[in-house]
Amino acid sequence: MSLAEFSLIERIRTRTRARADVVLGIGDDAALLQPRAGEQLVVTADTLNSGVHFPAETPPYDIGWKTLAVNLSDLASMGARPSWCVLALSLPDAETAWVDAFADGFFALADLHDIVLVGGDTTRGPLSLSVTAMGQVAAGTALRRDAAQVGDDIWVSGTLGDAAVALRAWQAGTLDVRSPAGDAQVDYLRQRLARPTPRVALGTALVGIARAAVDISDGLLADLGHICERSGVGAQIDPEQLPISAAARARIGLAHARDAALRGGDDYELCFTAAPAQRAALAELASRLALPLTRVGVIVAGNGVSTGSESTGPSGYEHFNEL
Amino acid sequence: MSLAEFSLIERIRTRTRARADVVLGIGDDAALLQPRAGEQLVVTADTLNSGVHFPAETPPYDIGWKTLAVNLSDLASMGARPSWCVLALSLPDAETAWVDAFADGFFALADLHDIVLVGGDTTRGPLSLSVTAMGQVAAGTALRRDAAQVGDDIWVSGTLGDAAVALRAWQAGTLDVRSPAGDAQVDYLRQRLARPTPRVALGTALVGIARAAVDISDGLLADLGHICERSGVGAQIDPEQLPISAAARARIGLAHARDAALRGGDDYELCFTAAPAQRAALAELASRLALPLTRVGVIVAGNGVSTGSESTGPSGYEHFNEL
Repeated sequence: MSLAEFSLIERIRTRTRARADVVLGIGDDAALLQPRAGEQLVVTADTLNSGVHFPAETPPYDIGWKTLAVNLSDLASMGARPSWCVLALSLPDAETAWVDAFADGFFALADLHDIVLVGGDTTRGPLSLSVTAMGQVAAGTALRRDAAQVGDDIWVSGTLGDAAVALRAWQAGTLDVRSPAGDAQVDYLRQRLARPTPRVALGTALVGIARAAVDISDGLLADLGHICERSGVGAQIDPEQLPISAAARARIGLAHARDAALRGGDDYELCFTAAPAQRAALAELASRLALPLTRVGVIVAGNGVSTGSESTGPSGYEHFNEL
Repeated sequence: MSLAEFSLIERIRTRTRARADVVLGIGDDAALLQPRAGEQLVVTADTLNSGVHFPAETPPYDIGWKTLAVNLSDLASMGARPSWCVLALSLPDAETAWVDAFADGFFALADLHDIVLVGGDTTRGPLSLSVTAMGQVAAGTALRRDAAQVGDDIWVSGTLGDAAVALRAWQAGTLDVRSPAGDAQVDYLRQRLARPTPRVALGTALVGIARAAVDISDGLLADLGHICERSGVGAQIDPEQLPISAAARARIGLAHARDAALRGGDDYELCFTAAPAQRAALAELASRLALPLTRVGVIVAGNGVSTGSESTGPSGYEHFNEL
C-alpha cells in the first residue's frame, strides 16, 4: 500500500463515528455488527458513475452526499431506519483535497441519519462509487412495492420534476452545477439535483400508515409502474394535482414542469399508497415533518399507470437499472 | 431500461436461488432479510477491476467465480457462515454470452456455499465488479485479527505462493489464463490464480479453536502483519516450514517458491493463530476437511513479522486496499 493510498484510507476511516451495535468496524477482514432482536435487515446497493449518474463537473462534496443519499432513499422507501454502510470507491487518482471534500459530503449526510461506514475498499480507476446500505425494520412491517390495493390513494412527498429541470438547465448551459448562483430559484433547483434529501423520517413514519411505497429515482410514471406491476393493480394519476415547485414552474412553465414531474428522475421523493382512512394521519404527518404530502391519484383495477387523457406506459430515466 | 439491459438483469435474476431467510429478494427498492437470533452479522466488500485484480484476458466464468471467492474468503477468515450478497456490475457492453458465463462462475460458487444474491445494480462502464457479502456467526465467537496471544502457534491452510507463481508465468507468457493447457502442474497453478477456493468450511470450523485469523490476499508477511499490528504482538516464521506445492517448486525452484509463499498474494488461504493445546484438534480438522494445515511459526512479544534470518516488514501485493 503506497503512503498516498494509505493516508487516503486513513482520511476516510478517521471520519467514521461510533455506533453501539458496531462490534468491529473498519480494520478487520469484515465488519461485525449486532442486529436488533425482532427486526429484519433491509439491504440496498446503488452505484454512481461520473458522467452517467451525475455531471462530471459536480463538486466532490455533492458527489459524496448524493452517493449516500440515493441509498438512504431506498432504505426510506422500505420504512427502514438506516444502520450501516460500506463504500467501494474507484478513483482515478488519490487527490487529498478531493477525498476530503467527498468525505465532507458523505459524512455530513451519514451523521444526520446515524448511519455508520463499516467497511469497503478503494481502487484506482474511473470515478465510480458503490454503496451498500443496511437498515432495520420491525419484522413484517417493511413497506413493499407489492402491497398496493385497489382504492388506495396515491401520494407523493415534496415536489416533483425539480432535478430533471435542473439537469436540462445544466445541459443547456443555463445552470452551473459547480456552485450556487446567488439566485434563490436557480440554487433551489441545483440543490435538488446535486444534493437530494432522502426522505428517511417520512419513510419510517409511514410504517403502519402506508401500504406500498417506492422512491422516485427514475420518474413517477416508471416508479409507480413498479408498484402496479408488483401489486397486480393499475394507477390513475391526475397531472393537475402533481406538486410542482415555484422554481420549476418559473423556469419552464407549468405544462413542461408537469411533464418533468411525471417523467423526470432523480428527485428521490417517496411515492406511496394508503387507504383513504389514513388521510387525516397523513395530513398530521406532513405538518409534523414540515414536508408536503400530496394526493395525486388512486389505485385501480387493471395494470399500468394512466394520466387521465391517455394511458401511459412506464417511462423514466434509463441510466440506472436495479437488479 | 433498454431491452438488452432488461434481459441482462433478468438473466442474472433468474439464476438466484431461494433461501428461507430471504423475505424479499431482488425486485423491490431493497432486500428484506431475517437475521438469526443470537447471531452477529459479518459484512465485507471487495471490488475487482479488470487489468488490476485479474488479467483482462481472464475468462468470464473465472471472473464471476473470483469476484465472489475473494469476498467469501473474508467471511471465512471471520468464521462466518455465508448468507447473502449484493453485486454491483459495471460492464462496457451487455454481451449476453459474457454475462451468462460470468453468472455460471458466480453462481457455481454461490450455490456451493448457499449464499444468495439479493440485490445490486448494473451500470455501463469499464469492467468492474463490487460485491458486498454478508454472513452470520454466533455472537462473540467471530475470529478477529486482534486476538493473537504470545505463545500461539501460527498456522496456514493449503499451499502458499501458487497464485503469485501463476501470475508471473502469465506475465512471462508461459501460462495462458484463458484455458487449461493439459499439463497438470500448469493447470493447477492456473486454477489457483483464476479460481481460488475460499476456505469457508475451515473458517467456520475454526470458531472455538483458533484465536486470530486473516485471509491471505496480499501475502503472508503483509496479512500476518495485520494480525501482529492489531494484536500488539510479533510473529516468528520459519520459511522452511512454509507449505509449497509441487507445481510451484517445479516451476521456479524451492528458494523462489518460498519467497512467493511469503510475499505473493491472491492465494486466499487462511492464516490463523491457536494455542499449542489445539494441535491435536487441528490435526483432526485437517484430516476431516482433507486440507493441509501447517504450523509455520509462533507469536512472540514485540511487533512485526520475522523470518529468522532477518526481520521483515510487512510486504505484499499493493493493488488492493481495504478500508
